[in-house]
Amino acid sequence: MPRFRVAVHVIPRKGILDPQGKAVRDALHTLGFGSVVDAHVGRHLVLEVDAPAEADATAGVRAMCDKLLANPVTEDYEIAGVQLA
Amino acid sequence: MPRFRVAVHVIPRKGILDPQGKAVRDALHTLGFGSVVDAHVGRHLVLEVDAPAEADATAGVRAMCDKLLANPVTEDYEIAGVQLA
Repeated sequence: MPRFRVAVHVIPRKGILDPQGKAVRDALHTLGFGSVVDAHVGRHLVLEVDAPAEADATAGVRAMCDKLLANPVTEDYEIAGVQLA
Repeated sequence: MPRFRVAVHVIPRKGILDPQGKAVRDALHTLGFGSVVDAHVGRHLVLEVDAPAEADATAGVRAMCDKLLANPVTEDYEIAGVQLA
């Protein structure tokens, strides 16, 4: 069975407070990077899954995001890329 | 001055222990997702920066990664994308 490497972005939902992003922005300002207007921090996950086809791999990863990897109340996720491992 | 949205991936360096990735893989197995062979967890940062040109924006973000956003001993980073905000 082919193996796929699926990349996922999990990001705070728009309109939800993003304290980690605010902390990063403030720290960058303190370090002199005044050009930073905004910062958001999410997670970048890379999953290696065995699946018969690319569509099955992405469907499986979506199920994993729904069940475990993303908080459905506060976070959105998107499949950022799929490639043969 | 134009505003750019720069996306950055910060990922654990290859060969370095990735306990968070291992925890995710084990949790997915427990939930019945046995097709997952490996999982890696990094950070997905989106920075909005004011810069005269795209090259200046990415150069600035690289400096931020070197100084604050990535741990130079255990992590690698890559600019995942740049677009006008």
